[in-house]
Amino acid sequence: MNGFACKNPATVQAKDFSFTGLHIPGNTRNAIGSAVTAATVTQIPGLNTLGISMVRIDLAPWGINPPHTHPRATEILTVIEGSLEVGFVTSNPDNRLISKILQKGDVFVFPIGLIHYQRNVGNGNVVAIAALSSQNPGVITIANSIFGSKPDISADILAKAFQVDKSIVQQIQWRF
Amino acid sequence: MNGFACKNPATVQAKDFSFTGLHIPGNTRNAIGSAVTAATVTQIPGLNTLGISMVRIDLAPWGINPPHTHPRATEILTVIEGSLEVGFVTSNPDNRLISKILQKGDVFVFPIGLIHYQRNVGNGNVVAIAALSSQNPGVITIANSIFGSKPDISADILAKAFQVDKSIVQQIQWRF
Amino acid sequence: MNGFACKNPATVQAKDFSFTGLHIPGNTRNAIGSAVTAATVTQIPGLNTLGISMVRIDLAPWGINPPHTHPRATEILTVIEGSLEVGFVTSNPDNRLISKILQKGDVFVFPIGLIHYQRNVGNGNVVAIAALSSQNPGVITIANSIFGSKPDISADILAKAFQVDKSIVQQIQWRF
Amino acid sequence: MNGFACKNPATVQAKDFSFTGLHIPGNTRNAIGSAVTAATVTQIPGLNTLGISMVRIDLAPWGINPPHTHPRATEILTVIEGSLEVGFVTSNPDNRLISKILQKGDVFVFPIGLIHYQRNVGNGNVVAIAALSSQNPGVITIANSIFGSKPDISADILAKAFQVDKSIVQQIQWRF
Amino acid sequence: MNGFACKNPATVQAKDFSFTGLHIPGNTRNAIGSAVTAATVTQIPGLNTLGISMVRIDLAPWGINPPHTHPRATEILTVIEGSLEVGFVTSNPDNRLISKILQKGDVFVFPIGLIHYQRNVGNGNVVAIAALSSQNPGVITIANSIFGSKPDISADILAKAFQVDKSIVQQIQWRF
Amino acid sequence: MNGFACKNPATVQAKDFSFTGLHIPGNTRNAIGSAVTAATVTQIPGLNTLGISMVRIDLAPWGINPPHTHPRATEILTVIEGSLEVGFVTSNPDNRLISKILQKGDVFVFPIGLIHYQRNVGNGNVVAIAALSSQNPGVITIANSIFGSKPDISADILAKAFQVDKSIVQQIQWRF
Repeated sequence: MNGFACKNPATVQAKDFSFTGLHIPGNTRNAIGSAVTAATVTQIPGLNTLGISMVRIDLAPWGINPPHTHPRATEILTVIEGSLEVGFVTSNPDNRLISKILQKGDVFVFPIGLIHYQRNVGNGNVVAIAALSSQNPGVITIANSIFGSKPDISADILAKAFQVDKSIVQQIQWRF
Repeated sequence: MNGFACKNPATVQAKDFSFTGLHIPGNTRNAIGSAVTAATVTQIPGLNTLGISMVRIDLAPWGINPPHTHPRATEILTVIEGSLEVGFVTSNPDNRLISKILQKGDVFVFPIGLIHYQRNVGNGNVVAIAALSSQNPGVITIANSIFGSKPDISADILAKAFQVDKSIVQQIQWRF
Repeated sequence: MNGFACKNPATVQAKDFSFTGLHIPGNTRNAIGSAVTAATVTQIPGLNTLGISMVRIDLAPWGINPPHTHPRATEILTVIEGSLEVGFVTSNPDNRLISKILQKGDVFVFPIGLIHYQRNVGNGNVVAIAALSSQNPGVITIANSIFGSKPDISADILAKAFQVDKSIVQQIQWRF
Repeated sequence: MNGFACKNPATVQAKDFSFTGLHIPGNTRNAIGSAVTAATVTQIPGLNTLGISMVRIDLAPWGINPPHTHPRATEILTVIEGSLEVGFVTSNPDNRLISKILQKGDVFVFPIGLIHYQRNVGNGNVVAIAALSSQNPGVITIANSIFGSKPDISADILAKAFQVDKSIVQQIQWRF
Repeated sequence: MNGFACKNPATVQAKDFSFTGLHIPGNTRNAIGSAVTAATVTQIPGLNTLGISMVRIDLAPWGINPPHTHPRATEILTVIEGSLEVGFVTSNPDNRLISKILQKGDVFVFPIGLIHYQRNVGNGNVVAIAALSSQNPGVITIANSIFGSKPDISADILAKAFQVDKSIVQQIQWRF
Repeated sequence: MNGFACKNPATVQAKDFSFTGLHIPGNTRNAIGSAVTAATVTQIPGLNTLGISMVRIDLAPWGINPPHTHPRATEILTVIEGSLEVGFVTSNPDNRLISKILQKGDVFVFPIGLIHYQRNVGNGNVVAIAALSSQNPGVITIANSIFGSKPDISADILAKAFQVDKSIVQQIQWRF
């Protein structure tokens, strides 16, 4: 389905249903101070057609998981360690920001397709485990999709959309 | 379903399945030069649970329908009049821009949840008719959701996400 | 899915998501004075699994789009030009005809699987754009399916079903 | 869902999941020599959201279950007693009749939304048990929907659709 | 889908949609006095993606169809002959047994995934016809799955789960 | 849906999408040495219709989460702490046990409806976080459903199903 083949049930093995590595901190030494380690159908072939997947999210102090959406999944997340601000924005016309600061053991839901983010608001690292309601949820990082596409979206369009000078758009595009 | 009740089949009437007004040009005298007129379950109660809806899109010369997503629907569009640039960006990690300039009679598809936009690239008005694979597709205009939410997403987060100075973020937020 | 393969996301192109030709009037010089031009997964491979498609409907003055159903889709339609009578019949036991004369800009819904028709009731041509909630909706023209199948349904069965003489059934079958 | 409420799981009882009467022959003393006894969500409230239902079909010698469709369900049928001709017609453009004479113990499938019929081709009664892939499958008897709707579909439309004289259409409508 | 390919619609034949043999009593000369004859996508290729299947259940006097579940289907059953006790158990925390003695013509529903059983409580044979809301419903016989898996589930686990001595578990495992 | 109402989108708040407490160890001082803390639609109303939920699983040394199924969900699990044996049994006729000993950071999948278990095989406590592909997955603990239903399943049935003396069945039933 969607390019992933199904194995013969008679020959599947435990390794087709498992993955190792969610205990390993992702490398957060990057511009946004965060990393996501995924266990989706790409890593676990046995997930095909089963409608779920899991990820680990690491955030260095003040790191962010920048605004993004999952085109095919709702996300549910729990904080394993640290203090994490989370938020999603409701669709037009309200565009309400629904946000909360989560502590260890708190759970939060990001409904399918809505833009959401996470930010470490503590002094230590944040570790979170999240699950998604698709074996192949997809991720769209808004900044990359808008300002870092290949090729670029025309700067005229973005200048008008974000109500800024075209030069600012081009400056941002240059960074992505 | 999702807050919309179903009517008794014995008492439904033609007006429960119809809507008037897709022939009326939307008012494009706004900052982005475009307008969308919707016929979803809000306007047509008989659409409930049926998984489809329709909209008219108007764009003044060089107007844009700024980057947005539909959290619960794929969109298919045809140009009735004018020249229309359309594009969507694939999800991470590729972020490929798939775009095309459409003329009258051309059809284009925006897969569920992906960020897409339209721009009038002709000298006259553009009129397009689009359909969406949900009776309640939702719309998330990226700029409004990111820079115009109520309350604001913290400028720190956006500055880091878009790799710009916090002052630029605040300037954009101030406009929304 | 259902015999249509999915392409590798890395190699899709704009042409996999587009179609040209909905501006071209269909040839209505036929017995029923109408024509349907389709943009489904057959024409647009990128539609696969996305659950939507689009068609153009042309009707000469007094032409009809004869009673038919879509086995896998709800339809939503808008009139671009002309005056169009539309109707669908509810299921047993009520068999209520829900009908309406639509003008330019009116929208109407035909719920999944119900028998419906369109008729041009004006002096000019009718052009309508419709969308369907499946990439592969299927069409069953009732008269062709009932009286024009290959091989024929036994005339005895149809005579009893339609409560007419077998000779009338055979006469109709002979025309299809 | 669709007008049927769900009961509190704590108070459901065996009677919410059962129905009595599929052993009772339906009354086939009618114009078509057949009767269908249904066990759907209307008779069994516990079926709601569960996606299945069951019916008994009785046919007197040479009786027919006239051409019909189920807008929301595939049907699977087995013959308990008698000889039964069954058939369905594939969708446009092929309109192939796929038919077979079934004996006791034979099973046949009618795919969702396709027009199908049954005819007793033996000297005794036929009893069949069928199941449908929806708790609320709906039935559209083609002749009733086309010629017996309330109000009538215009005879002009039907005359053109079936390529017969308007007088024949009116004659048929008068009988329904 | 799930390893079953779809045929080209142009070449399907009646035999792709049919199966012979539900009139033949299953062999109930076994430890549990029952047999199930299935007509699923394995026997009827045309069922693929259509979401339904059918089975015949035979029970010798006092035979049982032991507690089992269908991981992907709701079941609806009707008694053709005999007296049949049926029951299912609701999920945690209530674990209510919903049961009923069915006579010829009675219908009963087993909701998706719940453990259920049937027992012949009459002096003659029982014949039942059941349908399932999947073309590939799967069957999990609880005793076989728990005590007869290959390799065995550790006896320690089962002893604790069923609150019995490990020796009793091993005795049961030895029989499966 | 299924007895859970949807809130008005305009009045939802962060608390409708959150839950506190997955950091608190469940009380494992019970016969099986394990506890499950759930965050489903019962605890988080905003999950309704979104198709996902999350749980924390605690196991004391040698504690077990006894064989059970989720009638409406696939499960994906990761070990936060400890050594955990996991296994599921494939459906008839193979009844293969697919099992694995997981360490911290390992992920494992239990496909929808299949019987599965977990056992702490280390000297310390095990903590696992799991997600399920339904907001209302349900849990059926096999032993409770089979031997602890209210009222009891007849001991005769269970004796035959598990191929043991009726007295052993009654002994087990007495404990539940």
